[in-house]
Amino acid sequence: MIKKFRVPFDQKIKLKDYDPDDTDEYKESGDVRDQFKEFNMRMIDLQEVMYAEKKHGLLIILQAMDAGGKDGTIKHVMRGINPQSCRVTSFKIPSDEESSHDFLWRYHKAVPPRGYVGIFNRSHYEDVLVTRVHKLISDKVAKERFNQINEFEELMTENGITILKFYLHISKSEQKARLQERLDNKDKHWKFSKNDLRERSQWDEYMDAFEDVFNNCSTKHAPWYIIPSNHKWFRNLAVAKILVQAMEDMKMSTPKPEEGLEKLVIE
Amino acid sequence: MIKKFRVPFDQKIKLKDYDPDDTDEYKESGDVRDQFKEFNMRMIDLQEVMYAEKKHGLLIILQAMDAGGKDGTIKHVMRGINPQSCRVTSFKIPSDEESSHDFLWRYHKAVPPRGYVGIFNRSHYEDVLVTRVHKLISDKVAKERFNQINEFEELMTENGITILKFYLHISKSEQKARLQERLDNKDKHWKFSKNDLRERSQWDEYMDAFEDVFNNCSTKHAPWYIIPSNHKWFRNLAVAKILVQAMEDMKMSTPKPEEGLEKLVIE
Repeated sequence: MIKKFRVPFDQKIKLKDYDPDDTDEYKESGDVRDQFKEFNMRMIDLQEVMYAEKKHGLLIILQAMDAGGKDGTIKHVMRGINPQSCRVTSFKIPSDEESSHDFLWRYHKAVPPRGYVGIFNRSHYEDVLVTRVHKLISDKVAKERFNQINEFEELMTENGITILKFYLHISKSEQKARLQERLDNKDKHWKFSKNDLRERSQWDEYMDAFEDVFNNCSTKHAPWYIIPSNHKWFRNLAVAKILVQAMEDMKMSTPKPEEGLEKLVIE
Repeated sequence: MIKKFRVPFDQKIKLKDYDPDDTDEYKESGDVRDQFKEFNMRMIDLQEVMYAEKKHGLLIILQAMDAGGKDGTIKHVMRGINPQSCRVTSFKIPSDEESSHDFLWRYHKAVPPRGYVGIFNRSHYEDVLVTRVHKLISDKVAKERFNQINEFEELMTENGITILKFYLHISKSEQKARLQERLDNKDKHWKFSKNDLRERSQWDEYMDAFEDVFNNCSTKHAPWYIIPSNHKWFRNLAVAKILVQAMEDMKMSTPKPEEGLEKLVIE
């Protein structure tokens, strides 16, 4: 499952070859409930060791179209995580100060230190997505930024930070249903923004921009995963599985005691 | 229970009148399990409304002697909280940059915005506790700082941030047992620091410094709570109860929809 959703490093993909309705071998949420719970408990344990050891960190990058499930993924997949060593950063329109710096500046500041799990709700990829669709940058600048992003991410991984990049892949009709639900359900009204409709009208341009991102920035040190996300239960399972696998791969252990503590008795 | 543990604003207290073994009307952890679970679920719901409404914020300040249970309180009481709108800041020895500023500077930067729950694991109170016990500041400076802290906290509350300050009150013998456990259990070794023994040797000086803090900085806008913490299950219950009550008192509701959205149909 992990390999299936990982964008290969050495060949071009077409986004239309990835089915947002895919649920692998499962039929319904009940089929994965126990498995998801196990991943969740494993993640909580591994996070504790990560914090104790402070050799590894994890950066999770979430990108999606509006209503694609970024907030929901954080809420459900990270449920139970110790907030002490988890930091979520949501990136909105840059402030004046942020715009006065190079585009990576504000993301660099938010990178998790070793021992921590960091989550970017939107990320530096917005600077090659929304800016590109709205023609604020040229294709040439976008290409330069792909290289800058790859270098930036490599720097992080060399410092012990594992990077996982998830694109939560929904269909245009699924987005329609979710946005309509936000309008029709008064408890969800606050999530609706008229601006989402403008972005929706450029769906195809976004798909092209995303495809270009995947084909330029899925690297061995920081792979992209295209997660079928029309079914939330499957999205949560897939993200949790990849997350836990990445943390297992760190081969972490709680630090050894300082010398000379063995026989110490507290007075 | 809430009133019992809140340090009064208009009279002096003696820390020795607060029993760290107190468990109110309960005998054992089983007695409070269901109640704690209810508080926890209520907190999660209220946090979601807080984030949607963005009118109120919450700052939880945790102080205690070493092994008093600051980390454990975050882990257990905040379990299930959505990390997206929760920020924990652990304050250690100030960096060079931080020391070059006034003592409140680094704390001010970490204050949660409206819509968020912030947790300070240690806080500006360290600047009138550890500094005082180690005689790095005079009593006169401490008095000035009490006033500065009260003004700082009032400023926050006027901006919609509710402040809850918890002192996790353990006995000296309970600390001994917990430090010994950290030495004897190899999974907990990493939590042990020889430095804790030095601080332990100044237990009485710390109690005096804490008492002075409570008698000067428990205010109507930002009360101190002395939580009996020898029994972790009771500590968690008491903190959760006070937390939920404070969030209920905010009388929050999800924001009303923008005008003209009622009949909108997504294309």
